[in-house]
Amino acid sequence: MVSARRTGQDVRVSEFQPLDPLFAERVRASFRRQRVMETIGAELVVVEPGHCEIELPYRADLTQQHGFLHAGIATAIGDSAGGYASFSLMPAGSAVLAVEFKVNLLSPAQGERFRAVGRVKRPGKRLTVAAFDVLAIDAQGGEKVVLTGLQTVICLPDSEGRSG
Amino acid sequence: MVSARRTGQDVRVSEFQPLDPLFAERVRASFRRQRVMETIGAELVVVEPGHCEIELPYRADLTQQHGFLHAGIATAIGDSAGGYASFSLMPAGSAVLAVEFKVNLLSPAQGERFRAVGRVKRPGKRLTVAAFDVLAIDAQGGEKVVLTGLQTVICLPDSEGRSG
Amino acid sequence: MVSARRTGQDVRVSEFQPLDPLFAERVRASFRRQRVMETIGAELVVVEPGHCEIELPYRADLTQQHGFLHAGIATAIGDSAGGYASFSLMPAGSAVLAVEFKVNLLSPAQGERFRAVGRVKRPGKRLTVAAFDVLAIDAQGGEKVVLTGLQTVICLPDSEGRSG
Amino acid sequence: MVSARRTGQDVRVSEFQPLDPLFAERVRASFRRQRVMETIGAELVVVEPGHCEIELPYRADLTQQHGFLHAGIATAIGDSAGGYASFSLMPAGSAVLAVEFKVNLLSPAQGERFRAVGRVKRPGKRLTVAAFDVLAIDAQGGEKVVLTGLQTVICLPDSEGRSG
Repeated sequence: MVSARRTGQDVRVSEFQPLDPLFAERVRASFRRQRVMETIGAELVVVEPGHCEIELPYRADLTQQHGFLHAGIATAIGDSAGGYASFSLMPAGSAVLAVEFKVNLLSPAQGERFRAVGRVKRPGKRLTVAAFDVLAIDAQGGEKVVLTGLQTVICLPDSEGRSG
Repeated sequence: MVSARRTGQDVRVSEFQPLDPLFAERVRASFRRQRVMETIGAELVVVEPGHCEIELPYRADLTQQHGFLHAGIATAIGDSAGGYASFSLMPAGSAVLAVEFKVNLLSPAQGERFRAVGRVKRPGKRLTVAAFDVLAIDAQGGEKVVLTGLQTVICLPDSEGRSG
Repeated sequence: MVSARRTGQDVRVSEFQPLDPLFAERVRASFRRQRVMETIGAELVVVEPGHCEIELPYRADLTQQHGFLHAGIATAIGDSAGGYASFSLMPAGSAVLAVEFKVNLLSPAQGERFRAVGRVKRPGKRLTVAAFDVLAIDAQGGEKVVLTGLQTVICLPDSEGRSG
Repeated sequence: MVSARRTGQDVRVSEFQPLDPLFAERVRASFRRQRVMETIGAELVVVEPGHCEIELPYRADLTQQHGFLHAGIATAIGDSAGGYASFSLMPAGSAVLAVEFKVNLLSPAQGERFRAVGRVKRPGKRLTVAAFDVLAIDAQGGEKVVLTGLQTVICLPDSEGRSG
């Protein structure tokens, strides 16, 4: 599997059972409605139960004052990766919203492209806790974690939220 | 003063003494180099010692799946506001980098425009702690805090970092 | 009022309306069940709608390796102050649990005693966001903020949680 | 090795090279000076380069209002575990102080005893980022993560801080 090879693991058997067999399509449809992702050029590349990866090529118009990717943009793809990792485990018809997150910026975000990897740490009916990392990838494919985060998201049932 | 009126205070006497009398120009020059701010349409509207405000008009191409401003974009202006509030108190020739931040999303980010307000909580030679809020402003000028954050930034002296 | 004088304000009119007129007794009863507070010598000194203060005298047996109050103990009174500020606005019969918090340690926690001040930032039916500060107070009554935090707590209705 | 067996791994080869060959003794000596650890009954059980584990038996006098371990006490052992994981990689003569941390409370802290596991995520000359988990262990030895955290600590060189 592409995603497994990419993260350097031979096999990845998810520890999570999705409630909704159509979780991947549901996640992809919601991601397409996140218009900011198209604006910055981010792409959803992996959706598995409790796991999501988003890639973003470097663009000079997304940088901070030293030419690195702005921490807010790195956070945007990290937050979405963690949120969609969480959303993949939620029931059909629900909506997901971020409650809070915290990031540590480990290194300047320099690279040809960036990959945000979100993973559920503790799923819940209402609140889910996810972790996310953002990796910078250089021209030779070398990877470096530049940002690591912890996040809480809330599942809004059908009656309360808009779907997605 | 515009900023004082805008935040509903008649007088605002800063509690901080800037080390660099040209702090405001230094902050403005660095902000102009944050190319992502131009990309998303954000503007630096207030720079005072230990205090900084950034405004961003609503744009549909910066939204998440429900049409609200994406949390990562709200965080981007909050992070920059806190970072520049901190940078205003640093000596000439230094550079500023975010170490970490944490945000709580208090309400969906709905509004005609948004204002990030960054304030230094504890300045330091090396590490500065700042707080930031992002307010949503509706068509009638009504304001609502939609995001609140705490942040640590580091001051890199001339010899270690690039200026700004 | 003692608390108003103590915080240097002549008048403090709460911006919050408690749902439960007996909120203060409910908070005090729950605090008494937090056995760790008695163990460390902490006392609940102020309970108002959306606001709570806890005091802790310095004790050498609560210190870290340099003789300052351990960050975990400062966090314990901050977390309880924020949690009880939140609990004061919850309905009778509910229970409160911390979901997450984040603290910045602004200065070494040196003092004769410490006061944690918790304040609700955004109340909610389910999730409440609170802020808390911990102040160190010296022999002359001088105060210094040594820790500042942001916190999310959840309200568990009667049917789900144990009261308190 | 006890620690390796305990964490269910057959072999653990550290990815970090300590600067100080006497790191373990230095960490143990500093831990003994954290008087709060003795007060609550916590013990340092594993010290490896960039890795530290602290155990705490359940005690009713450390609980919150529902009889679970208070989040502040769980945080205290987590903060110390992350701090000492970081300190193990610092040079002889330096001192360590926590700058900030953030915790998510994943489950009520119920158990016979608790183990905090701290691991360095990114070491630095000045700032180190660590992660920590607190596990609850039941009478049958079953483990459950009840708290997860991210932390920044600072290394104070000999000239600035007290040793330890």
